[in-house]
Amino acid sequence: MNEKQTSSDSLPSSQMTKEQLVSYFNDHLDSYIDEWKEFLRFASISADDSYHPDCLECADWVKKFLDRIGFRTELLETPLLPLVYGELQGDPAFPTLLIYGHYDVQPPDPLELWKTAPFEPDLREGRLWGRGAEDNKGQLFFILKSLELMRAKGFLKGTVRVLIEGGEEIASRGLVDVLEKYRDLFKADALLLSDTGVANIDQGYLCVGLRGIAEIEYALYGPNRDLHSGIFGGLVRNPAIELSKLIASCFDSSGKISVPGFFDGFVEPSEELKDAAEVGIGFTAEEIEHMLGVPPNGGEQGRGLGERRGLHPTLEVNGLYAGYTGPGGKTIIPQCARVKISIRLVPNLDPARCLSSLTAHLTAQIPQGMRLEVVRTDKTGGVLRVEPDGRYVKVAKSVLAELHGAEPKLLWEGGSVPILSKLASASGAEPILVGYGLERDNIHSPNENFGLDQAEKGFVYYGLLLQRLNTPL
Amino acid sequence: MNEKQTSSDSLPSSQMTKEQLVSYFNDHLDSYIDEWKEFLRFASISADDSYHPDCLECADWVKKFLDRIGFRTELLETPLLPLVYGELQGDPAFPTLLIYGHYDVQPPDPLELWKTAPFEPDLREGRLWGRGAEDNKGQLFFILKSLELMRAKGFLKGTVRVLIEGGEEIASRGLVDVLEKYRDLFKADALLLSDTGVANIDQGYLCVGLRGIAEIEYALYGPNRDLHSGIFGGLVRNPAIELSKLIASCFDSSGKISVPGFFDGFVEPSEELKDAAEVGIGFTAEEIEHMLGVPPNGGEQGRGLGERRGLHPTLEVNGLYAGYTGPGGKTIIPQCARVKISIRLVPNLDPARCLSSLTAHLTAQIPQGMRLEVVRTDKTGGVLRVEPDGRYVKVAKSVLAELHGAEPKLLWEGGSVPILSKLASASGAEPILVGYGLERDNIHSPNENFGLDQAEKGFVYYGLLLQRLNTPL
Repeated sequence: MNEKQTSSDSLPSSQMTKEQLVSYFNDHLDSYIDEWKEFLRFASISADDSYHPDCLECADWVKKFLDRIGFRTELLETPLLPLVYGELQGDPAFPTLLIYGHYDVQPPDPLELWKTAPFEPDLREGRLWGRGAEDNKGQLFFILKSLELMRAKGFLKGTVRVLIEGGEEIASRGLVDVLEKYRDLFKADALLLSDTGVANIDQGYLCVGLRGIAEIEYALYGPNRDLHSGIFGGLVRNPAIELSKLIASCFDSSGKISVPGFFDGFVEPSEELKDAAEVGIGFTAEEIEHMLGVPPNGGEQGRGLGERRGLHPTLEVNGLYAGYTGPGGKTIIPQCARVKISIRLVPNLDPARCLSSLTAHLTAQIPQGMRLEVVRTDKTGGVLRVEPDGRYVKVAKSVLAELHGAEPKLLWEGGSVPILSKLASASGAEPILVGYGLERDNIHSPNENFGLDQAEKGFVYYGLLLQRLNTPL
Repeated sequence: MNEKQTSSDSLPSSQMTKEQLVSYFNDHLDSYIDEWKEFLRFASISADDSYHPDCLECADWVKKFLDRIGFRTELLETPLLPLVYGELQGDPAFPTLLIYGHYDVQPPDPLELWKTAPFEPDLREGRLWGRGAEDNKGQLFFILKSLELMRAKGFLKGTVRVLIEGGEEIASRGLVDVLEKYRDLFKADALLLSDTGVANIDQGYLCVGLRGIAEIEYALYGPNRDLHSGIFGGLVRNPAIELSKLIASCFDSSGKISVPGFFDGFVEPSEELKDAAEVGIGFTAEEIEHMLGVPPNGGEQGRGLGERRGLHPTLEVNGLYAGYTGPGGKTIIPQCARVKISIRLVPNLDPARCLSSLTAHLTAQIPQGMRLEVVRTDKTGGVLRVEPDGRYVKVAKSVLAELHGAEPKLLWEGGSVPILSKLASASGAEPILVGYGLERDNIHSPNENFGLDQAEKGFVYYGLLLQRLNTPL
């Protein structure tokens, strides 16, 4: 390792050590849990309009928290739910920080699978259970509590900006629309984000990147109405069959995407990235098969799990529909067939360009008389790359090394935070992605939960990081 | 031509000539129309349970009609709607006839496209408009009126059986379940059916066959739940993609079904059958493109329209669905993908055997860990072949020649009447398929109608046929 390590011993005496932060956390845990529960009781479900009043109450709760700890706050309007924005002006000699998170949560369905009600948080087995307990309210709450403490101690020297959106679970609709408008409010040197995970909490992990994402929906139109399959079968081509052929044509026999031009610019990943992608998996092939009932035999054959999941693009059919889908049968040639596709992207593959090559590939194969229509497309989410040797990232790495007693592992994730590449670009900041989520937290699923041990790690990490970033580097 | 022609001149003087039947029809047209309208006012929609009381009233109306003309009648129970059965015992020296038809109709949706209400029949432009005006109430009604006349004149010498079912529009559910139970009631020498069409009513057409039909629905199961496409994309195979590949694998590049074993037993059709299949099309390629908005470029390339539509098997996807099909997107790998398939079959291709070869073909390709389930299957409908030189078919041909002044054209249809091959087999009868439906009748569509000229042709044809079949051959 070649980064400068900052040990607790060399800290300015006025700052808090790791041990002091751990003690502080545990001394205040009861009141922290009460406040965390308050945050979780808001059913701030962004996907369902009928819960938008709850979302607004939740946004107000976050705003009041920031008010109390001395930030200048406002609710920034968007076409959808408002952004909570807080700012604490500081000394420009120190880095400006932007803390990003979200106050919205996933719908809790299916409700019958929850052991306790999703919006009545319950503490048991050393964990808090409830929707949002981890994603992102739990992880975010302990950043905010660290921030509160650092503010109280007078350790925040530079400008700190906080941006908590209400639409992360719906592809950042709202924020994406006003990113340019409020661009100046988001300017920063480092962008801190907790919405990530680890394989275990005793080891430090730094996320070095997320795949990009793009979505597209096609409709393939054939005859001008559903046709009788006896009268016209054999005469007229069937859009459902032709669409199936189009989908099949996107892959070669090895499972690799075979759309011409799709891989243009693709660079074989470095060994370092491959290692980070393997670290990102967190399961063996056997564990995956046990968990899902199917072996991990997808993607391009002959590549490792990490590469296939994180460093190769994927093309998934998320939805497919044509013709009659009710009970029993109806012997028709459907007028139209539809498919919803999402692609995940890796470095150098641009969402818009990859979608264009896909559309061109499909269009070239359409039988005479048929028409392929792009119904919907979303090209927001480029790949997010974190520079592991970035000025502020190095600070995070040294904090992780100090906290865990060993160098952090670098981790490349398969998922995407669509707004993140745009936000990083708009803010001009180095993104630093560290969170303490675990698979067992059941995010997006029933019985979401977050351990007090994970909460402590987040609190202490962010406490140390905020101090280090407010120390002359 | 080598069939014996029976001209009006050689008829027993006690029988009615073509001219007399035409006069009789026109003399009684007003009362016929009133009675036909009564029949059409029943909203006997078999597909919708809430109309089953209307179906029962309609069945009762048909039963009363047969009572009036002297048939012994009963309603035969089925698991669904009852069959109307009527019998007139006659001299076993004459052929026993079985007349088949149906009193149920298709749903009238979309209602807003009807110019007059579907169940308030309206006479205009020399045609009666309303649901069932043609299919099958209209065509059937004029057989029944011929039968009434022939009965009144004492021309029915042999036994006549009438079977009018209430489930033809729902794949003969009901009748198919009791076919064996009531088998003895259906025994006959000739089976008369009007549920067919012609290219124009000035020419006689004899249907020499209908394609068979079989249906199957598959579900392809992958992981044990819908998965996050970022976390698992590239690791786990996607059932919607794998199902698309399976569907695509059923065809070769010429568009021919390439399922191993599917064509076993297939015999290249005779020139005679090819001609009959061409006659069955009734449109040029240009007319089809004008009508449907797509050219007739389906089926196996390099074959004629008639062959592709009537004499080659087809495999159609009637319905296809997987994953998220609502508005917007949801980035998942779906747990399951489903497809509804119907196949149309030609001589020597058996429904059950073809479905088995399809299932075997698909099963052989399923990726490890996935599971293909047969959700539903219907193997009722074998091919119906009419022997053009059959003893009673020859009588029908001579009647057509007499009526139209030229030999009838033989016509092979692409559609299917699923129960017909089973009914022909159970009854032991030679099927004789002659109807006067035209494309302009809009059967199964809004503004269904039937011309008085078509009705006259049906009445006269069946009047002549019933007389000839009750004459010593």
